[in-house]
Amino acid sequence: MSGFFLNPERMNTHVVIMAGGIGSRLWPLSTPDVPKQFIDVLGVGRTLIQLTTDRFGPLCAPENFWVVTGEKYVNLVKEQLPDIPADQILAEPEGRNTAPCIAYASWKIARKDPEANIVVTPADALVLKTADFAVTIAKALAFTEERDAIVTVGITPSRPETGYGYINAAEALHGQLVKVSEFKEKPDLDTAIRYLEDGRYFWNAGIFVWNVRTIVNELRSYTPQIAEIMDQLTPSLFTENETTELRRLFPSCEKISIDYAVMEKSPRIYVIAEDLGWSDLGSWGSVLTRMETDPDGNAVVGSDVRLFGCRDCFVHSAGEKTVVVEGLDGYIVAESGNRLLICRLSQEQHIKEYSA
Amino acid sequence: MSGFFLNPERMNTHVVIMAGGIGSRLWPLSTPDVPKQFIDVLGVGRTLIQLTTDRFGPLCAPENFWVVTGEKYVNLVKEQLPDIPADQILAEPEGRNTAPCIAYASWKIARKDPEANIVVTPADALVLKTADFAVTIAKALAFTEERDAIVTVGITPSRPETGYGYINAAEALHGQLVKVSEFKEKPDLDTAIRYLEDGRYFWNAGIFVWNVRTIVNELRSYTPQIAEIMDQLTPSLFTENETTELRRLFPSCEKISIDYAVMEKSPRIYVIAEDLGWSDLGSWGSVLTRMETDPDGNAVVGSDVRLFGCRDCFVHSAGEKTVVVEGLDGYIVAESGNRLLICRLSQEQHIKEYSA
Repeated sequence: MSGFFLNPERMNTHVVIMAGGIGSRLWPLSTPDVPKQFIDVLGVGRTLIQLTTDRFGPLCAPENFWVVTGEKYVNLVKEQLPDIPADQILAEPEGRNTAPCIAYASWKIARKDPEANIVVTPADALVLKTADFAVTIAKALAFTEERDAIVTVGITPSRPETGYGYINAAEALHGQLVKVSEFKEKPDLDTAIRYLEDGRYFWNAGIFVWNVRTIVNELRSYTPQIAEIMDQLTPSLFTENETTELRRLFPSCEKISIDYAVMEKSPRIYVIAEDLGWSDLGSWGSVLTRMETDPDGNAVVGSDVRLFGCRDCFVHSAGEKTVVVEGLDGYIVAESGNRLLICRLSQEQHIKEYSA
Repeated sequence: MSGFFLNPERMNTHVVIMAGGIGSRLWPLSTPDVPKQFIDVLGVGRTLIQLTTDRFGPLCAPENFWVVTGEKYVNLVKEQLPDIPADQILAEPEGRNTAPCIAYASWKIARKDPEANIVVTPADALVLKTADFAVTIAKALAFTEERDAIVTVGITPSRPETGYGYINAAEALHGQLVKVSEFKEKPDLDTAIRYLEDGRYFWNAGIFVWNVRTIVNELRSYTPQIAEIMDQLTPSLFTENETTELRRLFPSCEKISIDYAVMEKSPRIYVIAEDLGWSDLGSWGSVLTRMETDPDGNAVVGSDVRLFGCRDCFVHSAGEKTVVVEGLDGYIVAESGNRLLICRLSQEQHIKEYSA
């Protein structure tokens, strides 16, 4: 690979943001009505989906962004991302996991731009090293521009994390396109430690790069049921019938992730691995690791949060609120709207049950 | 004293509710904008001032209730106590402690009903034994009806409380009018223990009974400065000039409590002592002692409060809120409006500083 800084073909670059998730482990901040991608989780003044579009700014023109989300979130997307063309905000009638989501976006993009070169990204992850990220994605885009290849972004693991899937690369290289040997499910701790030592295992960030011909072909090959539904939908795309037809057809798509449907089967998968300061922000603990802390280990988001004798706490207050917390050690305190959570960080895996 | 159940002279019975306090130790529930007397502290569906009027229902006609409060709370009083005549809601231009408050109410009542027999009560205390309370007050009213006497209500102490003032009665009698020997400031613990053993010491609940001639005379004798201002105000009472004149004159009243001004000086003070299930609800801890608790010692007010592994906690949530609390032992969790408090019960004496 020759060096690349920006994507010279940005006219054909499209970014697909998958924004249909619920983020139930970040309750009470994230709720089914306003999931975490639409929230300023880090207290930086931008929601996660806004931060996601921001980091693709050097790579893709605003008119080439696409968002796939639930019908109930379309207005949130329009509010938060007013520059994205309305007909590129795709509303899933129901969540059918990532393969139908990506298929729908791909069939639409193919119709509009048969030469499209695409990045697919979750809406709700964090990338701290945005310059490195842009370089990495630009390299991947250059690779897929003329090749029938799928590129995944691998994150250099910084700890033996058991909560993520891993990509096993053929070589322990960074910043270069490498063939993928295998995708690995969430490992147990011993396996995760081995992965970390090995150097050829990278976290699967769910970020994919491909050209539209490749992904459509792959979906035809590996999920013909979904491809057939998309073909039925094709005459309606970009017409007034699209919503009606989508509602009729989309719910019968097989409910399957792109990882199961394509990644684990296709022979043309590559990875470009890099340490990008990435986090899926999938839990309060993972958000906390991305926050600045005071000398007592406390992290705070909020307009008026007052801590007295607290250690290793994460206090997250949405809106204009006076929050006084005294004498807590190792707790999450999070309040948003008409919801309040106080929970030991060590017990955060139970938040879903507590809030159900 | 002959037995008394209800007050046969309720036409002349007036109840003065002092509702000017701030209740800063019950932050965040109680605030300068909506102090605790206007709040449903116990989660029973009635605010403390409403509970206060309720317990005088058997004793006094609604048209004989008077409320003295701050100007900013007049609308709250009207909303919560719509049966009280508007011209009997007295608005202090500023708080000058209880002697000017009582003087103003007394001068007004004297003008309207020179034969008035009066109970003065704080708005924000709790009485659980309301039937015993009514009997006690009826006895006191019967006593002051024809006598130049001041009756205070003494609460049988249930613990060596160091946070209250005490009334030293001449005899260790209950349910009868007894001469007061002395008023005592908040004692240290050893003294409080001695008081408890002695049997002649009762908590001063700040509830007073007298006829209007007596209290006006006492104020003339012991606080002539305040009495003189009230005399200047007299021509304006019940006229359109009252507010203007009150704003001009009232702030120059000596700032002094009725206890210092009259109780500790007058020779005609009696006490009627009883165990009334009384609490001043002056702190979260004191409110907690009046709450029902679950087997783990937790008390909860709120529409949807979920506790997991909590002990001896008091969770108070105003409004429709989902509150999840995990793994706390001995904490107050209280939220109201845009304020949230999490604090060990053992540290509640600091709440005033924390919230300042």
